[in-house]
Amino acid sequence: MHKYSQPAPPAKSREIRAGILGHTGYSGSELAGLLQRHPAVTPVLLDHRKVEDPSRDRLPTACSGNKNQPLARLPWSSGVVSGNGLDIVFTATPPEVSIEVAPEVLAQGARVIDLSGAFRLSTAEQYQRWYGATHGRPELLQQAVYGLPELYRESLRTACLVANPGCFPTAAICALWPLLQKGMVDRTAGIVCDAKSGVSGAGKTPSPKTHFVQVSENFSAYAILKHRHVPEMLNHLGLQESEFSFTAHLLPIQRGILATHYLRLTHAVRLEELLEVYRSAYQSSLFIRLYSDASTPQLRLVNGSNFCDIHCTLGSEGRQLVVVSCIDNLVKGAAGQAVQNLNVMFGLDEAAGLPASAALGA
Amino acid sequence: MHKYSQPAPPAKSREIRAGILGHTGYSGSELAGLLQRHPAVTPVLLDHRKVEDPSRDRLPTACSGNKNQPLARLPWSSGVVSGNGLDIVFTATPPEVSIEVAPEVLAQGARVIDLSGAFRLSTAEQYQRWYGATHGRPELLQQAVYGLPELYRESLRTACLVANPGCFPTAAICALWPLLQKGMVDRTAGIVCDAKSGVSGAGKTPSPKTHFVQVSENFSAYAILKHRHVPEMLNHLGLQESEFSFTAHLLPIQRGILATHYLRLTHAVRLEELLEVYRSAYQSSLFIRLYSDASTPQLRLVNGSNFCDIHCTLGSEGRQLVVVSCIDNLVKGAAGQAVQNLNVMFGLDEAAGLPASAALGA
Amino acid sequence: MHKYSQPAPPAKSREIRAGILGHTGYSGSELAGLLQRHPAVTPVLLDHRKVEDPSRDRLPTACSGNKNQPLARLPWSSGVVSGNGLDIVFTATPPEVSIEVAPEVLAQGARVIDLSGAFRLSTAEQYQRWYGATHGRPELLQQAVYGLPELYRESLRTACLVANPGCFPTAAICALWPLLQKGMVDRTAGIVCDAKSGVSGAGKTPSPKTHFVQVSENFSAYAILKHRHVPEMLNHLGLQESEFSFTAHLLPIQRGILATHYLRLTHAVRLEELLEVYRSAYQSSLFIRLYSDASTPQLRLVNGSNFCDIHCTLGSEGRQLVVVSCIDNLVKGAAGQAVQNLNVMFGLDEAAGLPASAALGA
Amino acid sequence: MHKYSQPAPPAKSREIRAGILGHTGYSGSELAGLLQRHPAVTPVLLDHRKVEDPSRDRLPTACSGNKNQPLARLPWSSGVVSGNGLDIVFTATPPEVSIEVAPEVLAQGARVIDLSGAFRLSTAEQYQRWYGATHGRPELLQQAVYGLPELYRESLRTACLVANPGCFPTAAICALWPLLQKGMVDRTAGIVCDAKSGVSGAGKTPSPKTHFVQVSENFSAYAILKHRHVPEMLNHLGLQESEFSFTAHLLPIQRGILATHYLRLTHAVRLEELLEVYRSAYQSSLFIRLYSDASTPQLRLVNGSNFCDIHCTLGSEGRQLVVVSCIDNLVKGAAGQAVQNLNVMFGLDEAAGLPASAALGA
Repeated sequence: MHKYSQPAPPAKSREIRAGILGHTGYSGSELAGLLQRHPAVTPVLLDHRKVEDPSRDRLPTACSGNKNQPLARLPWSSGVVSGNGLDIVFTATPPEVSIEVAPEVLAQGARVIDLSGAFRLSTAEQYQRWYGATHGRPELLQQAVYGLPELYRESLRTACLVANPGCFPTAAICALWPLLQKGMVDRTAGIVCDAKSGVSGAGKTPSPKTHFVQVSENFSAYAILKHRHVPEMLNHLGLQESEFSFTAHLLPIQRGILATHYLRLTHAVRLEELLEVYRSAYQSSLFIRLYSDASTPQLRLVNGSNFCDIHCTLGSEGRQLVVVSCIDNLVKGAAGQAVQNLNVMFGLDEAAGLPASAALGA
Repeated sequence: MHKYSQPAPPAKSREIRAGILGHTGYSGSELAGLLQRHPAVTPVLLDHRKVEDPSRDRLPTACSGNKNQPLARLPWSSGVVSGNGLDIVFTATPPEVSIEVAPEVLAQGARVIDLSGAFRLSTAEQYQRWYGATHGRPELLQQAVYGLPELYRESLRTACLVANPGCFPTAAICALWPLLQKGMVDRTAGIVCDAKSGVSGAGKTPSPKTHFVQVSENFSAYAILKHRHVPEMLNHLGLQESEFSFTAHLLPIQRGILATHYLRLTHAVRLEELLEVYRSAYQSSLFIRLYSDASTPQLRLVNGSNFCDIHCTLGSEGRQLVVVSCIDNLVKGAAGQAVQNLNVMFGLDEAAGLPASAALGA
Repeated sequence: MHKYSQPAPPAKSREIRAGILGHTGYSGSELAGLLQRHPAVTPVLLDHRKVEDPSRDRLPTACSGNKNQPLARLPWSSGVVSGNGLDIVFTATPPEVSIEVAPEVLAQGARVIDLSGAFRLSTAEQYQRWYGATHGRPELLQQAVYGLPELYRESLRTACLVANPGCFPTAAICALWPLLQKGMVDRTAGIVCDAKSGVSGAGKTPSPKTHFVQVSENFSAYAILKHRHVPEMLNHLGLQESEFSFTAHLLPIQRGILATHYLRLTHAVRLEELLEVYRSAYQSSLFIRLYSDASTPQLRLVNGSNFCDIHCTLGSEGRQLVVVSCIDNLVKGAAGQAVQNLNVMFGLDEAAGLPASAALGA
Repeated sequence: MHKYSQPAPPAKSREIRAGILGHTGYSGSELAGLLQRHPAVTPVLLDHRKVEDPSRDRLPTACSGNKNQPLARLPWSSGVVSGNGLDIVFTATPPEVSIEVAPEVLAQGARVIDLSGAFRLSTAEQYQRWYGATHGRPELLQQAVYGLPELYRESLRTACLVANPGCFPTAAICALWPLLQKGMVDRTAGIVCDAKSGVSGAGKTPSPKTHFVQVSENFSAYAILKHRHVPEMLNHLGLQESEFSFTAHLLPIQRGILATHYLRLTHAVRLEELLEVYRSAYQSSLFIRLYSDASTPQLRLVNGSNFCDIHCTLGSEGRQLVVVSCIDNLVKGAAGQAVQNLNVMFGLDEAAGLPASAALGA
């Protein structure tokens, strides 16, 4: 039905050619939209028979000459990467597809940013436990760099295979890392991450759990203490499982993650000292914003943007701490972070092609 | 505009005459609806000039003879209670109005169930700190019984003044009390209550915070570590402020509270032992339901009902615990609990007039 | 998994034994809830292998002795009707299942109320055109009585097979019938019904169209001029297809239908005359309510109830007319109307077991 | 509290200096966001004491050097326009403020695009009837050009005062004008516009009508046959009041208008002929898109964009017609159309600064 087109050679100003595999899912189509507006990238949609969604809407046609050219589109095949001069391929595919496809892309000399959980964990054993499957290419787990630029900017510059973080880990690690790195947290008291996510985080495949009548006017907790995003958080925060309690909840909204963290500090601090720890840790990080104490942390100020907003509240004795972090799960939690990683990998401005918040009325 | 009618003398089967002050707010109108269907109560709406809402909808008129007689309605005045033979008055009014009105009702020989925060705390000092106002009738704070039948059923039978609990404390106390009472909780590690509420909890008065465009597709945290419901929880759970972290969040739904609690047990237990602690503590409590571990705790199973559902998840070492509790904030968290208290106070079946859940598709 | 139980013999006060086939869908489970509270009916759930939904939630268990006995549940088989003394069976099943099952029920001497489209149309030809399938039992189309008590109360008293109306036709016929019956409508100008429905109208089966992310913050028109409910409206209003324009729209809410009708009167009238036409037509109809002109017709005043609310607005010249009707699609548009039909068929109070509106804050 | 800053002189590429009065309302803040990204415009926020909203959120602060400079902001005064070299002022203010301010702007030699209803009607009499107030500057009604580029592109090029159309009229006129202009519509049968709007159309001021609990899970009809947008539609479509029936409805969503139009053609046509009429009428109009018959017209494909999507369905005899049009009420229905008008007035690319749709998953 869809006619595959050979994309035009990239103009000078669009010199990075990027393929997108899995472009009909939420993360993939968000990514396609971002790359279409990226000043240095020419995106190409790649159709993989296992993951294309036939139900997506076709857009109406403009009466005047349509200036919005649809993106070039090619069927996935082993030679499509080198044959079309792709510099990088984004795989927004189920982990088992990513594990199959990523080595083929790397073998053709292009880089890979994978948006699934395929390459996020350290070992095949960890993957087996949390994903319930054998990892077919365990050697790639060593090679992959965890794509959180706020922590791993330097390693990402030269990475060939990037494991784009999970949405919950992005929110949790950004909120907790500066304090843990400084040794300010009393780990014996335990750390809590109570996370709430919009429905797009559950993916596009229809199911009883994502039916409108089930979700609207409802709210639920799920995967309590056993979400597969937990090991990412433990690995990058240096925590033991018994020190960390994570619960996911489903919000009746389309997008956004708000995570509320509870912890005890080793010694009392003032709020301003605390904020300075964050400012210092993220002084090169364009996308981390800090709330002053008086405002209300909320999703609408980040949705549509690549920001991670952080809000701190200290108890009266200066050791009890609540840290709230907010991200758009499809942008900073997926597609936007993938673009940010591309920008780092190719030496571009880290914010290139990434929108600021456009929240209604803000 | 509204014509006040002298209510008919109560039929034999409806022998308790109950006034409702503040019947145009969310809790008050929910209460009026419940009492209208209560087999043993004749409700009378009382209009107080400070609290009546002129914007409420008028219902269309049935073509046939309308069998649904509207409730009798009288203006509030000092003599209305004894003059109309009211046995009890529900005050669903702001605390300052409740403090003014309750003594007048008691002086006329009727009992009071107050749905505000006026009589929930122990001392005038506590009230001053959390409500930011001087309590005009501190002697009533001693007299009031905290209206949580699951804990104080016996004292409620003879109470004249009942302080109906806050919505958040109802969810938190029901979830935590059995474990704390048994001394099973390691209090040095701290206890977390991360609570999420529907918008009706914020009341009916229009404000920028409750505007549809602000709330829908949004989610926010508020009153972090300083919600005025905190002292109720501390008092009835026997906790210190430094041991307890409470955050409220605003859900883009009409009603319901889901609260996720995190704590550490003093020693390892198995799930079945834990559930047995709850079963034992609540063996006389009709409205506490327990989840088995496999299901998903969610609001739609309690909304519209007076149930408080509780769900427990143990970490792999048996000491890390997550307890989720769910209530309808306007039923078990307000009007339903008030009816339950009336039932206890007047020796009725504790479930009289209280609906079971009617969740769609459940 | 589920243990089938032999239901206890009916108590004196619950003497009508009613089976429900298709009790896991939205209409069927709404019906089960209504019948459970009906003072004269003992409901029995019947499981049909083609229509049972395995994904439905299990309820948590009450700590105290659970007074809410679950409904008796039996597997569907040819002899289950007579074997269990069922007086009536509700079939909330797809039309093809209803066509197969209804004759078996009738043959065992019980009556049938079918909630599908199986028996709503007049002829097998009409069924073939609008449902795209051959009707296996065309003789039943003559026998079935259309279950709209407001029009056909007398015929329903003795009916054995009742075709419960579609949700859209209920809203449209109630709004238009009094005027058409009186010959007040200029049919040459055409009649418009612009109808908007909540998502439960689309059924419980997950699909891309009912995914939360697709529906929320969206609104769409569908089945324009070709909805399969159209022939019901034409038949019972006595209209030609070219005289009537019907469009369905999908609202991002769970339940409710609001239909806006536009027509031209043959001669000018005053509003009060018009309302009198409705009052007269529906003088025996408990569930039709009329708005006065000043109020705003809205779904929240009918949702949860069996009412059909009607609102009329005349243009300045007295011939241009807009009629808005509101129903709860699962109650007056399905399960509530089915109970109303049962009440008529068995000589009960027509309102028995049917709730009045319980809209929040109303 | 806010410090007013003198904006820097415009860079070469940003040579149009545009003031925004009323930038805290929904339309005004949407406009500020669009102009901030417009390649040829330097926007300046103007604070008018009558219209500024103090409740708006303050954004969190980025940890790294904040690259997103806030917009320059100046207090409104009579000399601010010429004193700051403003070329144009957008007035997103209540009509009475616009009537007061617009002449002052014009007198200082700048152009005006007014987003209120102040200058949309033809005569002071019409304004008096529909807005219930005397128009203080009736001479400006003659001078103002109606800012719908699809109809009045040529006149807009030289206009000094532009009346930006109402949101409902934009949807209705775009849908109906090509057919009426060609004389294809049987006006004796009447034309229906059944319009549904998101809540942002009701403005930002909190009221019982826009409270989340009132709006969510609800749907209502309002201003039936008497919305103040009706005279705009009559004027520009050349219709009499008796020929046109308009009803507005409130959708429980943030933004978007879907309007369903019903009409009868003077003679039968085929769908392809009909679409050709639209294509021809809008051959220079970048923002009108046409659906093919098979797809489902829906808001999510226009929200966030300046498109007006149009969908036609013909009845079986080729004369019965349903036309659905969709716009984002804050973009094509307000701020986006204002930018489009600016582009036409200043000889820029008509699409400059206007986003394409970014609907989730589209």
